[in-house]
Amino acid sequence: MTFGLKLLVYYAEMCRNRARLKTALAEAAVGKISGAVGTFAHLPPDLEEEVCERLEIGFEPASTQVVQRDRHAALICVLSLIAASLEKFSVEFRHLARTEVREVEEEFGAGQKGSSAMPHKRNPWRFENVTGLARVMRGYAVAALENGALWHERDISNSSVERVIFPDSTATLDFMLTRLAGLVETLVVNEEQMRANLDLTRGLAFSGTLLLELTEKGLSREAAYALVQRHAMDTWDKGGDYRDRVLADPAITETLSKEEIDRAFSLDQSLRHIDAIFDRTLERCDEPSSEGSKS
Amino acid sequence: MTFGLKLLVYYAEMCRNRARLKTALAEAAVGKISGAVGTFAHLPPDLEEEVCERLEIGFEPASTQVVQRDRHAALICVLSLIAASLEKFSVEFRHLARTEVREVEEEFGAGQKGSSAMPHKRNPWRFENVTGLARVMRGYAVAALENGALWHERDISNSSVERVIFPDSTATLDFMLTRLAGLVETLVVNEEQMRANLDLTRGLAFSGTLLLELTEKGLSREAAYALVQRHAMDTWDKGGDYRDRVLADPAITETLSKEEIDRAFSLDQSLRHIDAIFDRTLERCDEPSSEGSKS
Amino acid sequence: MTFGLKLLVYYAEMCRNRARLKTALAEAAVGKISGAVGTFAHLPPDLEEEVCERLEIGFEPASTQVVQRDRHAALICVLSLIAASLEKFSVEFRHLARTEVREVEEEFGAGQKGSSAMPHKRNPWRFENVTGLARVMRGYAVAALENGALWHERDISNSSVERVIFPDSTATLDFMLTRLAGLVETLVVNEEQMRANLDLTRGLAFSGTLLLELTEKGLSREAAYALVQRHAMDTWDKGGDYRDRVLADPAITETLSKEEIDRAFSLDQSLRHIDAIFDRTLERCDEPSSEGSKS
Amino acid sequence: MTFGLKLLVYYAEMCRNRARLKTALAEAAVGKISGAVGTFAHLPPDLEEEVCERLEIGFEPASTQVVQRDRHAALICVLSLIAASLEKFSVEFRHLARTEVREVEEEFGAGQKGSSAMPHKRNPWRFENVTGLARVMRGYAVAALENGALWHERDISNSSVERVIFPDSTATLDFMLTRLAGLVETLVVNEEQMRANLDLTRGLAFSGTLLLELTEKGLSREAAYALVQRHAMDTWDKGGDYRDRVLADPAITETLSKEEIDRAFSLDQSLRHIDAIFDRTLERCDEPSSEGSKS
Repeated sequence: MTFGLKLLVYYAEMCRNRARLKTALAEAAVGKISGAVGTFAHLPPDLEEEVCERLEIGFEPASTQVVQRDRHAALICVLSLIAASLEKFSVEFRHLARTEVREVEEEFGAGQKGSSAMPHKRNPWRFENVTGLARVMRGYAVAALENGALWHERDISNSSVERVIFPDSTATLDFMLTRLAGLVETLVVNEEQMRANLDLTRGLAFSGTLLLELTEKGLSREAAYALVQRHAMDTWDKGGDYRDRVLADPAITETLSKEEIDRAFSLDQSLRHIDAIFDRTLERCDEPSSEGSKS
Repeated sequence: MTFGLKLLVYYAEMCRNRARLKTALAEAAVGKISGAVGTFAHLPPDLEEEVCERLEIGFEPASTQVVQRDRHAALICVLSLIAASLEKFSVEFRHLARTEVREVEEEFGAGQKGSSAMPHKRNPWRFENVTGLARVMRGYAVAALENGALWHERDISNSSVERVIFPDSTATLDFMLTRLAGLVETLVVNEEQMRANLDLTRGLAFSGTLLLELTEKGLSREAAYALVQRHAMDTWDKGGDYRDRVLADPAITETLSKEEIDRAFSLDQSLRHIDAIFDRTLERCDEPSSEGSKS
Repeated sequence: MTFGLKLLVYYAEMCRNRARLKTALAEAAVGKISGAVGTFAHLPPDLEEEVCERLEIGFEPASTQVVQRDRHAALICVLSLIAASLEKFSVEFRHLARTEVREVEEEFGAGQKGSSAMPHKRNPWRFENVTGLARVMRGYAVAALENGALWHERDISNSSVERVIFPDSTATLDFMLTRLAGLVETLVVNEEQMRANLDLTRGLAFSGTLLLELTEKGLSREAAYALVQRHAMDTWDKGGDYRDRVLADPAITETLSKEEIDRAFSLDQSLRHIDAIFDRTLERCDEPSSEGSKS
Repeated sequence: MTFGLKLLVYYAEMCRNRARLKTALAEAAVGKISGAVGTFAHLPPDLEEEVCERLEIGFEPASTQVVQRDRHAALICVLSLIAASLEKFSVEFRHLARTEVREVEEEFGAGQKGSSAMPHKRNPWRFENVTGLARVMRGYAVAALENGALWHERDISNSSVERVIFPDSTATLDFMLTRLAGLVETLVVNEEQMRANLDLTRGLAFSGTLLLELTEKGLSREAAYALVQRHAMDTWDKGGDYRDRVLADPAITETLSKEEIDRAFSLDQSLRHIDAIFDRTLERCDEPSSEGSKS
């Protein structure tokens, strides 16, 4: 697949997260002036509605002494979901930055030191940093999900929790977002290395396509799989080029022409729909509410 | 407050949960036929869209080998949020069913045994049951939130998790919902005991209203608080009726007439807005999408 | 049961927690000077052992670049366990401080205000505070349990997590312990109210004892249960004193003498083993390592 | 480092886990026959102690209606810690099994199919499986940590939780242990590939050793780092062999002799303490109780 498609998948996930956050923020941004047990003993409901309108927030239609805490739990869950997305992207970038892969690197300033013990190493430590913080964010979600069952019209046990998790979860996620955005903006992308890594598979990346071409010509899946796998295993274990092995096997060439085999091993052929994926995804991300909808 | 208002608060919370669930189910109900790495190497995107439309599900605009797992994590978080709501309601019913409170009771069949060791006791064990299961549901949310960061275009580590948490979280929540619905339908509500418990406070429940009446007449909040609290503490510590103590204090009666004091101690007065709260809440629950909105 | 026994159960739990903490601290207090990948490429193992001995900590027998993180996860789990114990105690004190129960109260300073909206109320807000923080502590345990699977000889993802959860979990638990200790030291215990609440059950608290006395005299458990429960339910529903109802039932008095019935309703009889429980528990708590052991 | 040392680190971690499990099992394996509220109203404490002794379990010195749940929470935390260790090992094996690394492989039966879509691929799916289940295990720990705060001498809310988490956590961990043990026993270890991967770094793996040798000869750390890093970066960016670059730099050779440089690049020299690490670790694992102790 292309590196761009990888990023597009992430972009689409962040569009979903933006929509989730918008919903959750609207749910949590409500006020109440309904008194100590929610009965409006001293003030009329109209006043609450007017005040909330002026503050440009919603109002809690039926409240106790407090706005109900499911609203806040839903919000912290969304913050934790976003953190899990950032973790996912960072884990992938860490993989791509490994010594053996080296498809991307964190930007490395001219005067910057590498690893203290191993001067040649450029660790993706900022990505690791983002990965770790997602674990902390999950902890805040656990606390938020426990925070709803207040006794009677309220007890104050939610308060001590919220003094920790509201500032800590929002500040942590803000840090993660800022850091990851900076990392992506300055990311060093080694296109040549991507191509080289693809070539390392000596054609094996196209075995799935070859399998399907064979079955489309009438071979049973079992027979096709056996053919395709045998050469794949030989390439894997003994080296050599997969396409060469395939072209040398009459059992395959009597079913597929050289042109058909070439097409099965063609990157352009495999990636011909990438632009269409981009089009349909970006179109939807501009209108998150209709994303993935049925009609 | 009224018992009905308590239930209305819960009803409104379940309306929010219904809206959350609807959104999360739509997000999770998407399909993909984009191949092993999401590139549509063998089939065109149009086909995926057509198949998903026939299945009446959405499609994943940009996918890898799998539909992205943030969709499922969001859903399990919502299931866990719903469980936390049921926990909250059950904790309250457990409180109201205590020996010292007895405002509600779980229905107790004629032939049913009570506690094995204490035959007179009717434990709210089904409510306790629902309370406990919310803890298990939070555990599934933790696992779901960790399940997004698959390596590359997929690893299969999510699969073992989902084989546990998909059936277990949905079956557990279904059980909780069914059980709690049954409990509420057959709940024994002791209206007389509610009134008796209110009377137990010997008027103290109206101290807040009295405080506000005094301040509206021009007393500083400090002065009013001192007056109101002194009699409250005496009532609390020495017994007697709070209203009687208040009526016997010239410092209060020179500010408030007997009619005004009567009004401060009137339940009807305190509850005069209950119907309005019901109206505005039920109206909104019928259209959850506009609930608490600004315009 | 007695209030003292309740506290003894908590005391025994804290003895277990102390033993757990001691073990976990010893496990976590280890050092390493084995180099960037744990091979002692530059220094001999002896030096590590000597340095750690001087620091009065253990050493990590086989390490990578870092001390292995299962040690720290075990410690944070213990901190979270202790927090859960404090939550348990606080929940019980909150129950006992309820308006309808009032067996204990948080100390309330002479000049201290009560609830702002309800001047007569003395909320157990510090106990609620401790209850809430246990939720936050569970979140740190989740993060710690995720922190072990570092890549290769280390990645640095654990570091960002530990910068949050090490100070936050230890400071939070310290606050909880200090607060709860202070609350218990100054707790207002209403002995008379305890007795009054016991009397509220009008003898029903002894129904279990009566049941056993009947079965010891040869009645089948079913027959005894039916007898005992019928009067219990009548007492519960219609009022009156349970013991009076029992004494008036020939089906019971022909099995049990008045003395035997008196004994069944005797608090002294029920509590005759309390001192023995204290003795055996305190003896064990002084030597936590042998607590509950078999020989 | 050596592959054996990697495994030794895991072995030592499992020794710690064994000790933790032993302690936690002993803590949880206690009984009680102290009656409905823990007062021994009907039976003497001696009887409880005698019965528990015959059952070869401990007894709960001070109990309520139930054995206190901190004991079970401590046990489930340990099960979750063990699962986190298995996750850590599996993540490492997954890394080592990557196409670009290939130092280990899951055994692949002769007749076994590879990936359905990509016949050449041998996915480490069993390791992925173990990784995933650790997430589920963390969820059970969350539920267990919430399960202690029962109301009064017991409520039954812990029961519904334990019916899920006791069988599910023990069965899941048993599966994980069995699966991982089987994987390790049949693991395909590619020693040649390990050597080849090491050579891929073209000597860079020894940069840290070189740095220390230079500073031992009196160079400031800054000066030595600058020298060492410059050649490391050139090797990284332009190819070539790191040792050759070092030997060609007079600024280095005037400080270190060829023999000293050879020693810095010697694997034998780097690994000379491995046997000692094995000795001291295995010695301690046989007596886990004294592991890492100070004297």
